[in-house]
Amino acid sequence: MENLTEKTISKEQVYSGKIIDLYIEDVELPNKKIGKREIVKHPGAVAVLAITDEGKMLMVEQFRKPLEKTIIEIPAGKLEKGEDPLECANRELLEETGYRCERMESIGSFYTSPGFADELIHLFFTDSLVKSGSQMTDEDEFLNVLEVSLDEARRLMDQQKIHDAKTAYGVMYMELSHAKRK
Amino acid sequence: MENLTEKTISKEQVYSGKIIDLYIEDVELPNKKIGKREIVKHPGAVAVLAITDEGKMLMVEQFRKPLEKTIIEIPAGKLEKGEDPLECANRELLEETGYRCERMESIGSFYTSPGFADELIHLFFTDSLVKSGSQMTDEDEFLNVLEVSLDEARRLMDQQKIHDAKTAYGVMYMELSHAKRK
Repeated sequence: MENLTEKTISKEQVYSGKIIDLYIEDVELPNKKIGKREIVKHPGAVAVLAITDEGKMLMVEQFRKPLEKTIIEIPAGKLEKGEDPLECANRELLEETGYRCERMESIGSFYTSPGFADELIHLFFTDSLVKSGSQMTDEDEFLNVLEVSLDEARRLMDQQKIHDAKTAYGVMYMELSHAKRK
Repeated sequence: MENLTEKTISKEQVYSGKIIDLYIEDVELPNKKIGKREIVKHPGAVAVLAITDEGKMLMVEQFRKPLEKTIIEIPAGKLEKGEDPLECANRELLEETGYRCERMESIGSFYTSPGFADELIHLFFTDSLVKSGSQMTDEDEFLNVLEVSLDEARRLMDQQKIHDAKTAYGVMYMELSHAKRK
Protein backbone atom coordinates (compact mmCIF):
# COMPACT_ATOMS: atom_id res chain seq x y z
CA MET A 1 0.00 0.00 0.00
CA GLU A 2 1.49 3.31 -1.05
CA ASN A 3 -0.05 5.94 1.11
CA LEU A 4 -1.47 5.06 4.53
CA THR A 5 -2.29 8.64 5.52
CA GLU A 6 -5.73 9.56 6.89
CA LYS A 7 -6.91 13.09 6.09
CA THR A 8 -9.06 14.95 8.60
CA ILE A 9 -12.54 15.74 7.22
CA SER A 10 -13.98 17.20 10.38
CA LYS A 11 -13.01 17.47 14.02
CA GLU A 12 -15.09 17.92 17.15
CA GLN A 13 -13.80 18.64 20.64
CA VAL A 14 -15.77 16.50 23.08
CA TYR A 15 -13.92 17.38 26.28
CA SER A 16 -11.33 19.84 27.52
CA GLY A 17 -9.80 18.92 30.86
CA LYS A 18 -6.95 19.51 33.29
CA ILE A 19 -4.70 16.82 31.82
CA ILE A 20 -6.37 15.58 28.64
CA ASP A 21 -8.61 16.82 25.84
CA LEU A 22 -10.76 14.52 23.73
CA TYR A 23 -11.47 14.96 20.02
CA ILE A 24 -13.54 12.96 17.54
CA GLU A 25 -12.35 13.18 13.96
CA ASP A 26 -13.92 12.02 10.73
CA VAL A 27 -11.09 10.97 8.46
CA GLU A 28 -10.71 9.95 4.84
CA LEU A 29 -9.19 6.47 4.82
CA PRO A 30 -6.65 5.29 2.20
CA ASN A 31 -9.54 3.63 0.28
CA LYS A 32 -11.41 7.00 0.25
CA LYS A 33 -14.09 5.77 2.68
CA ILE A 34 -14.81 7.72 5.85
CA GLY A 35 -13.69 6.49 9.27
CA LYS A 36 -13.99 7.85 12.81
CA ARG A 37 -11.05 8.36 15.19
CA GLU A 38 -11.22 9.02 18.93
CA ILE A 39 -8.18 11.02 19.92
CA VAL A 40 -6.94 11.90 23.41
CA LYS A 41 -4.63 14.91 23.43
CA HIS A 42 -2.04 14.89 26.21
CA PRO A 43 0.80 17.41 26.83
CA GLY A 44 3.42 14.65 26.99
CA ALA A 45 5.44 13.51 29.96
CA VAL A 46 8.88 12.69 31.27
CA ALA A 47 10.18 9.78 33.34
CA VAL A 48 13.51 9.49 35.13
CA LEU A 49 15.64 6.41 35.63
CA ALA A 50 17.56 7.67 38.65
CA ILE A 51 20.31 5.45 40.07
CA THR A 52 21.59 5.94 43.62
CA ASP A 53 25.23 5.59 44.69
CA GLU A 54 24.29 2.05 45.83
CA GLY A 55 23.12 1.22 42.30
CA LYS A 56 19.41 1.22 43.21
CA MET A 57 16.61 2.81 41.18
CA LEU A 58 14.55 5.57 42.79
CA MET A 59 10.90 4.66 42.49
CA VAL A 60 7.62 6.01 43.80
CA GLU A 61 4.65 4.09 45.07
CA GLN A 62 1.44 5.79 44.04
CA PHE A 63 -2.28 5.06 43.92
CA ARG A 64 -3.51 5.16 40.33
CA LYS A 65 -7.21 5.84 40.19
CA PRO A 66 -7.72 4.44 36.65
CA LEU A 67 -6.34 1.08 37.86
CA GLU A 68 -7.87 1.30 41.37
CA LYS A 69 -4.56 0.10 42.74
CA THR A 70 -1.19 1.23 44.03
CA ILE A 71 1.78 0.55 41.77
CA ILE A 72 5.50 1.28 41.84
CA GLU A 73 6.87 3.51 39.08
CA ILE A 74 9.95 5.50 38.21
CA PRO A 75 9.51 9.23 38.94
CA ALA A 76 7.54 10.93 36.20
CA GLY A 77 5.23 13.76 35.44
CA LYS A 78 3.56 15.66 32.68
CA LEU A 79 5.09 18.55 30.79
CA GLU A 80 3.92 22.04 31.63
CA LYS A 81 3.01 24.21 28.66
CA GLY A 82 6.17 25.01 26.69
CA GLU A 83 8.41 23.23 29.20
CA ASP A 84 11.61 21.59 27.98
CA PRO A 85 11.55 17.82 28.71
CA LEU A 86 14.98 17.88 30.42
CA GLU A 87 13.90 20.76 32.69
CA CYS A 88 10.69 18.90 33.44
CA ALA A 89 12.64 15.74 34.30
CA ASN A 90 14.82 17.63 36.77
CA ARG A 91 11.75 19.29 38.29
CA GLU A 92 9.79 16.06 38.66
CA LEU A 93 12.79 14.21 40.12
CA LEU A 94 13.17 16.91 42.79
CA GLU A 95 9.44 17.23 43.51
CA GLU A 96 8.77 13.51 43.78
CA THR A 97 11.96 12.27 45.46
CA GLY A 98 13.81 15.26 46.95
CA TYR A 99 16.87 14.57 44.77
CA ARG A 100 18.62 16.85 42.32
CA CYS A 101 21.27 15.55 39.92
CA GLU A 102 24.47 16.84 38.35
CA ARG A 103 23.96 15.31 34.90
CA MET A 104 20.98 13.83 33.14
CA GLU A 105 20.87 12.27 29.67
CA SER A 106 18.08 11.30 27.27
CA ILE A 107 17.61 7.55 26.83
CA GLY A 108 14.77 7.64 24.33
CA SER A 109 11.09 8.36 24.10
CA PHE A 110 7.93 6.50 23.21
CA TYR A 111 4.25 7.01 22.52
CA THR A 112 2.25 5.18 25.17
CA SER A 113 -0.81 4.38 23.09
CA PRO A 114 -0.59 5.52 19.48
CA GLY A 115 -4.02 4.09 18.61
CA PHE A 116 -5.96 6.67 20.59
CA ALA A 117 -3.58 9.10 22.32
CA ASP A 118 -0.72 11.42 21.41
CA GLU A 119 1.04 11.12 24.79
CA LEU A 120 4.82 10.97 24.28
CA ILE A 121 7.03 10.03 27.24
CA HIS A 122 10.62 11.28 27.25
CA LEU A 123 12.96 9.10 29.30
CA PHE A 124 16.06 10.32 31.09
CA PHE A 125 18.88 8.65 32.99
CA THR A 126 20.95 9.95 35.86
CA ASP A 127 23.42 8.37 38.26
CA SER A 128 24.70 11.62 39.75
CA LEU A 129 22.06 12.18 42.43
CA VAL A 130 22.40 14.74 45.20
CA LYS A 131 19.98 14.66 48.12
CA SER A 132 18.45 18.07 48.21
CA GLY A 133 15.56 18.14 50.62
CA SER A 134 12.18 16.55 50.98
CA GLN A 135 9.40 15.90 48.48
CA MET A 136 7.38 18.81 47.16
CA THR A 137 4.51 17.04 45.45
CA ASP A 138 1.47 18.64 43.86
CA GLU A 139 -1.50 19.18 46.15
CA ASP A 140 -3.34 16.15 44.74
CA GLU A 141 -0.27 13.87 44.60
CA PHE A 142 0.64 11.40 47.36
CA LEU A 143 3.51 8.97 47.07
CA ASN A 144 6.15 6.94 48.91
CA VAL A 145 9.75 7.00 47.68
CA LEU A 146 11.52 3.64 47.41
CA GLU A 147 15.03 2.51 46.44
CA VAL A 148 14.83 -0.67 44.40
CA SER A 149 17.65 -2.96 43.26
CA LEU A 150 17.53 -4.42 39.76
CA ASP A 151 16.78 -7.92 41.12
CA GLU A 152 13.96 -6.53 43.25
CA ALA A 153 12.64 -4.61 40.27
CA ARG A 154 12.42 -7.78 38.18
CA ARG A 155 10.58 -9.51 41.04
CA LEU A 156 8.21 -6.55 41.33
CA MET A 157 7.53 -6.82 37.58
CA ASP A 158 6.77 -10.54 37.93
CA GLN A 159 4.39 -9.67 40.79
CA GLN A 160 2.81 -6.87 38.73
CA LYS A 161 3.61 -4.30 41.43
CA ILE A 162 5.70 -2.67 38.71
CA HIS A 163 3.19 -2.72 35.89
CA ASP A 164 3.47 0.27 33.60
CA ALA A 165 5.22 0.94 30.30
CA LYS A 166 7.77 3.56 31.35
CA THR A 167 8.94 1.61 34.42
CA ALA A 168 9.20 -1.65 32.44
CA TYR A 169 11.26 0.31 29.89
CA GLY A 170 13.52 1.61 32.67
CA VAL A 171 14.02 -1.83 34.23
CA MET A 172 14.77 -3.46 30.86
CA TYR A 173 17.14 -0.59 30.02
CA MET A 174 19.09 -1.33 33.22
CA GLU A 175 19.05 -5.07 32.56
CA LEU A 176 20.44 -4.46 29.07
CA SER A 177 23.17 -2.17 30.45
CA HIS A 178 24.18 -4.87 32.94
CA ALA A 179 24.06 -7.63 30.33
CA LYS A 180 26.30 -5.61 27.97
CA ARG A 181 28.81 -4.95 30.74
CA LYS A 182 29.31 -8.67 31.40
CA MET B 1 2.26 7.48 54.14
CA GLU B 2 0.08 4.59 55.19
CA ASN B 3 -2.85 4.60 52.84
CA LEU B 4 -2.57 6.15 49.39
CA THR B 5 -6.05 5.11 48.23
CA GLU B 6 -8.42 7.62 46.62
CA LYS B 7 -12.11 6.98 47.24
CA THR B 8 -14.64 7.85 44.54
CA ILE B 9 -17.09 10.53 45.70
CA SER B 10 -18.89 11.00 42.40
CA LYS B 11 -18.44 9.88 38.83
CA GLU B 12 -19.66 11.37 35.58
CA GLN B 13 -19.47 9.79 32.14
CA VAL B 14 -18.40 12.46 29.65
CA TYR B 15 -18.11 10.30 26.54
CA SER B 16 -18.91 6.80 25.36
CA GLY B 17 -17.18 5.80 22.14
CA LYS B 18 -16.19 2.94 19.89
CA ILE B 19 -12.83 2.35 21.57
CA ILE B 20 -12.74 4.52 24.67
CA ASP B 21 -15.07 5.96 27.29
CA LEU B 22 -14.21 9.01 29.37
CA TYR B 23 -15.16 9.56 33.01
CA ILE B 24 -14.55 12.41 35.42
CA GLU B 25 -14.37 11.40 39.06
CA ASP B 26 -14.30 13.45 42.24
CA VAL B 27 -12.15 11.55 44.71
CA GLU B 28 -11.29 11.84 48.38
CA LEU B 29 -7.51 12.20 48.58
CA PRO B 30 -5.41 10.66 51.40
CA ASN B 31 -5.46 14.05 53.21
CA LYS B 32 -9.31 14.06 53.02
CA LYS B 33 -9.40 16.88 50.47
CA ILE B 34 -11.26 16.46 47.19
CA GLY B 35 -9.46 15.97 43.90
CA LYS B 36 -10.57 15.46 40.30
CA ARG B 37 -9.46 12.56 38.08
CA GLU B 38 -9.90 12.27 34.31
CA ILE B 39 -10.13 8.59 33.43
CA VAL B 40 -10.10 6.97 29.99
CA LYS B 41 -11.62 3.49 29.99
CA HIS B 42 -10.19 1.14 27.37
CA PRO B 43 -10.98 -2.57 26.84
CA GLY B 44 -7.28 -3.53 26.92
CA ALA B 45 -5.15 -4.85 24.11
CA VAL B 46 -2.68 -7.49 23.03
CA ALA B 47 0.61 -7.29 21.14
CA VAL B 48 2.56 -10.12 19.56
CA LEU B 49 6.31 -10.50 19.29
CA ALA B 50 6.32 -12.90 16.33
CA ILE B 51 9.67 -14.26 15.16
CA THR B 52 10.05 -15.73 11.67
CA ASP B 53 12.18 -18.78 10.82
CA GLU B 54 14.90 -16.30 9.75
CA GLY B 55 14.86 -14.73 13.23
CA LYS B 56 13.12 -11.54 12.12
CA MET B 57 10.25 -9.79 13.90
CA LEU B 58 6.95 -9.37 12.11
CA MET B 59 5.95 -5.73 12.22
CA VAL B 60 3.25 -3.58 10.69
CA GLU B 61 3.57 -0.09 9.31
CA GLN B 62 0.49 1.91 10.10
CA PHE B 63 -0.69 5.53 10.04
CA ARG B 64 -1.57 6.67 13.54
CA LYS B 65 -3.97 9.59 13.44
CA PRO B 66 -3.21 10.82 16.99
CA LEU B 67 0.47 11.22 15.98
CA GLU B 68 -0.26 12.32 12.36
CA LYS B 69 2.48 9.97 11.24
CA THR B 70 3.19 6.44 10.10
CA ILE B 71 5.09 4.25 12.56
CA ILE B 72 6.25 0.64 12.68
CA GLU B 73 4.80 -1.53 15.44
CA ILE B 74 4.52 -5.16 16.42
CA PRO B 75 1.08 -6.62 15.52
CA ALA B 76 -1.50 -5.62 18.09
CA GLY B 77 -5.15 -4.97 18.63
CA LYS B 78 -7.77 -4.34 21.22
CA LEU B 79 -9.67 -7.00 23.12
CA GLU B 80 -13.23 -7.69 22.07
CA LYS B 81 -15.74 -7.85 24.92
CA GLY B 82 -15.04 -10.94 27.01
CA GLU B 83 -12.24 -12.10 24.72
CA ASP B 84 -9.34 -14.08 26.18
CA PRO B 85 -6.02 -12.22 25.57
CA LEU B 86 -4.33 -15.32 24.07
CA GLU B 87 -7.22 -15.84 21.64
CA CYS B 88 -7.11 -12.16 20.75
CA ALA B 89 -3.35 -12.35 20.12
CA ASN B 90 -3.82 -15.28 17.71
CA ARG B 91 -6.68 -13.44 15.97
CA GLU B 92 -4.76 -10.18 15.60
CA LEU B 93 -1.63 -11.95 14.36
CA LEU B 94 -3.64 -13.67 11.65
CA GLU B 95 -5.69 -10.61 10.70
CA GLU B 96 -2.75 -8.21 10.51
CA THR B 97 -0.02 -10.47 9.06
CA GLY B 98 -1.67 -13.58 7.59
CA TYR B 99 0.31 -15.84 9.96
CA ARG B 100 -0.98 -18.41 12.42
CA CYS B 101 1.28 -20.00 15.02
CA GLU B 102 1.62 -23.36 16.74
CA ARG B 103 2.52 -22.04 20.17
CA MET B 104 2.26 -18.67 21.85
CA GLU B 105 3.38 -17.70 25.33
CA SER B 106 2.73 -14.71 27.59
CA ILE B 107 5.76 -12.46 28.15
CA GLY B 108 4.17 -9.93 30.47
CA SER B 109 1.74 -7.07 30.46
CA PHE B 110 1.81 -3.38 31.23
CA TYR B 111 -0.49 -0.40 31.67
CA THR B 112 0.31 2.15 29.00
CA SER B 113 -0.58 5.28 30.90
CA PRO B 114 -1.69 4.67 34.49
CA GLY B 115 -2.14 8.37 35.23
CA PHE B 116 -5.22 8.76 33.04
CA ALA B 117 -6.09 5.44 31.36
CA ASP B 118 -6.80 1.84 32.36
CA GLU B 119 -5.49 0.34 29.10
CA LEU B 120 -3.56 -2.87 29.84
CA ILE B 121 -1.49 -4.44 27.04
CA HIS B 122 -0.85 -8.19 27.19
CA LEU B 123 2.32 -9.24 25.36
CA PHE B 124 2.84 -12.60 23.70
CA PHE B 125 5.77 -14.32 22.04
CA THR B 126 5.80 -16.88 19.24
CA ASP B 127 8.52 -18.34 17.05
CA SER B 128 6.36 -21.09 15.52
CA LEU B 129 4.78 -19.15 12.67
CA VAL B 130 2.84 -20.79 9.85
CA LYS B 131 1.90 -18.72 6.79
CA SER B 132 -1.82 -19.05 6.50
CA GLY B 133 -3.15 -16.66 3.92
CA SER B 134 -3.34 -12.94 3.45
CA GLN B 135 -4.26 -10.12 5.80
CA MET B 136 -7.85 -9.70 6.90
CA THR B 137 -7.78 -6.30 8.50
CA ASP B 138 -10.73 -4.34 9.88
CA GLU B 139 -12.51 -2.11 7.39
CA ASP B 140 -10.84 1.02 8.78
CA GLU B 141 -7.37 -0.54 9.18
CA PHE B 142 -4.61 -0.22 6.56
CA LEU B 143 -1.12 -1.54 7.07
CA ASN B 144 2.03 -2.92 5.47
CA VAL B 145 3.65 -6.05 6.90
CA LEU B 146 7.43 -5.96 7.40
CA GLU B 147 10.05 -8.42 8.61
CA VAL B 148 12.63 -6.64 10.74
CA SER B 149 15.91 -7.96 12.11
CA LEU B 150 16.94 -7.03 15.65
CA ASP B 151 19.70 -4.72 14.38
CA GLU B 152 17.25 -3.01 12.00
CA ALA B 153 14.75 -2.68 14.86
CA ARG B 154 17.31 -0.88 17.04
CA ARG B 155 18.10 1.47 14.15
CA LEU B 156 14.38 2.10 13.61
CA MET B 157 14.07 2.94 17.33
CA ASP B 158 16.97 5.39 17.06
CA GLN B 159 15.24 6.95 14.02
CA GLN B 160 11.89 7.04 15.91
CA LYS B 161 10.19 5.00 13.17
CA ILE B 162 9.63 2.48 15.95
CA HIS B 163 8.32 4.79 18.61
CA ASP B 164 5.68 3.18 20.80
CA ALA B 165 5.76 1.44 24.19
CA LYS B 166 4.76 -2.09 23.18
CA THR B 167 7.21 -2.27 20.27
CA ALA B 168 10.06 -0.84 22.37
CA TYR B 169 9.20 -3.52 24.96
CA GLY B 170 9.31 -6.22 22.27
CA VAL B 171 12.65 -5.04 20.87
CA MET B 172 14.24 -4.79 24.32
CA TYR B 173 12.83 -8.21 25.21
CA MET B 174 14.60 -9.67 22.16
CA GLU B 175 17.83 -7.80 22.92
CA LEU B 176 17.76 -9.20 26.47
CA SER B 177 17.15 -12.74 25.19
CA HIS B 178 20.13 -12.40 22.84
CA ALA B 179 22.35 -10.87 25.54
CA LYS B 180 21.55 -13.72 27.95
CA ARG B 181 22.30 -16.35 25.29
CA LYS B 182 25.83 -15.00 24.80
